[in-house]
Amino acid sequence: MASAGGGIAFLGPEGTFTHQAVLEWTARAGTRAPQGGPRALDSVGAVHDAVASGAAARGIVAIESSVEGYVVPSLDGLLGSQEVVAVDEVVLPISFDAFVRPGHGELTEATAHPHGLAQVSRFVAAHRLRPVPASSNGAACRDVTDHQVAFGPRVCGALYGLETLAQGVEDFGGARTRFLVLARRDEAPVLLAAARDALPPATPWRTMVAVTPAVTGPGVLARVTTAFGARGINMTSLMERPLKARANQYVFAVTFDAAPWDPHARALLEDLLAAGDSLKVLGAYPAPPGECALDGVVPAHVPHGSVAAGADQADLARGLLW
Amino acid sequence: MASAGGGIAFLGPEGTFTHQAVLEWTARAGTRAPQGGPRALDSVGAVHDAVASGAAARGIVAIESSVEGYVVPSLDGLLGSQEVVAVDEVVLPISFDAFVRPGHGELTEATAHPHGLAQVSRFVAAHRLRPVPASSNGAACRDVTDHQVAFGPRVCGALYGLETLAQGVEDFGGARTRFLVLARRDEAPVLLAAARDALPPATPWRTMVAVTPAVTGPGVLARVTTAFGARGINMTSLMERPLKARANQYVFAVTFDAAPWDPHARALLEDLLAAGDSLKVLGAYPAPPGECALDGVVPAHVPHGSVAAGADQADLARGLLW
Repeated sequence: MASAGGGIAFLGPEGTFTHQAVLEWTARAGTRAPQGGPRALDSVGAVHDAVASGAAARGIVAIESSVEGYVVPSLDGLLGSQEVVAVDEVVLPISFDAFVRPGHGELTEATAHPHGLAQVSRFVAAHRLRPVPASSNGAACRDVTDHQVAFGPRVCGALYGLETLAQGVEDFGGARTRFLVLARRDEAPVLLAAARDALPPATPWRTMVAVTPAVTGPGVLARVTTAFGARGINMTSLMERPLKARANQYVFAVTFDAAPWDPHARALLEDLLAAGDSLKVLGAYPAPPGECALDGVVPAHVPHGSVAAGADQADLARGLLW
Repeated sequence: MASAGGGIAFLGPEGTFTHQAVLEWTARAGTRAPQGGPRALDSVGAVHDAVASGAAARGIVAIESSVEGYVVPSLDGLLGSQEVVAVDEVVLPISFDAFVRPGHGELTEATAHPHGLAQVSRFVAAHRLRPVPASSNGAACRDVTDHQVAFGPRVCGALYGLETLAQGVEDFGGARTRFLVLARRDEAPVLLAAARDALPPATPWRTMVAVTPAVTGPGVLARVTTAFGARGINMTSLMERPLKARANQYVFAVTFDAAPWDPHARALLEDLLAAGDSLKVLGAYPAPPGECALDGVVPAHVPHGSVAAGADQADLARGLLW
């Protein structure tokens, strides 16, 4: 086995929301955080490789945005990696500040990662700026020109010596991004045991598992989801990813409310194995406080033009095309 | 009602895979294609607006890549639009050529849309090029500098006067992208009826519907998927999208093998309405020939490190962390 390396690898450059997540997780982990500090790398693949080889003790990657959905390269990295697994989670509020260079000229362009640009579209439209995609929000702030407004986390102002034109310019307040803390699969049992020991016994856990059905066709997804229901386990998320270059065939990345070692979760995983599915646990981590209370009636934000029971026949026909 | 405008709106500039999809769909539609030809617009939102207002007769947008998954802005555009619905589909093989300017200098950078760069990562790494994101593959080819290699569909060579450095440089052969053909919701019934009349009676159809549960919590996804199974309707795809700024609450975009007017599909939609779900049909279109035969045993491409029934205890523990 490679000797344990130091530090926490993340997708650089400095000044990204991922960088901010690294700092937040390090503070929260306290004495359980590895020595060595943040280490900016060039790609999600490089972060995985650093963790797999032991060159970094941990890696932190964005996995899901409440606005943009799953981060596909991160999800595919986890699906494809034999050596890396998630052992913790960080949830960060995503708020963008608008930065400019001191002594800037006329401002004609907006720059950020494409996901960032999508989250500040109203500000960009109101100021008639032309969107210019960057490889990251950190890079946008680092490389901002005299005629550009760059968007990124608050830390970028001090980090890159920029002036703050406006704070909190995102289209939707309340957006959040989930980050996963990656470790070597061989070390995960020890790390997870230490995390359990450090938490109150009633702390809820979440598990993310890849389910690849052996046979596709009608009813496969219903069978998988019904298996969860039969064991009384709540799925908090289901994401399908196409098998590379095979149309209409998928692997399901399912997140559920239990630890993989809970007896009912073990029974569920055994049910799926018995049905012929291939399984891989992609991560297990304590569920963040407060999130479990979000279940309930959904009052708003239903897609425009949806119809519900009781709609008249004309609206039903218009909404459903039947 | 706005008078019917002309042409097919798409996300420009010229030279994107979407542009190629427009040309392919126009040729296939023959006399049913609207007059006016392709019209490159600045954003997916502008394409929706042009169709909704009647300024364009149709719009064509990319909706799903076999490599990168769903195109989130296109999906969110459909979810959010009251006036636009998909009435046809185009599936295009995605193959990238590498283009350079005639008389170029030393080649140090690779440029394409971020999705394009992800699909040619081996070529980029092998040639030690620095990735430079562009707003589209067409823009990358149009704006390629003397020290860049641009990646795009074959048509870009002639369109922008570039030399072809290499053909078919994508990481995975066989990648495909699905495009949806958008029309005004008010016109959809007439267009769909004409399409049905022009096709053999046994032609299979697909429907894409947004399902927003009224109540979230344990078992919701199992209930929805079981409803499809109970009516014998195969879901070919399920995508969840977060409700804006509400953590852990989702709308499901489900694609299934039936037309919305088929009796068993109507019964299914009535089941979901009766359960309190809000529904919106996002599109209905003939299923492409050949795709229906892809169901069956999945022999390969299961994520590395997955375990299956019959694995020994050590492998199960390593794969499942239980």
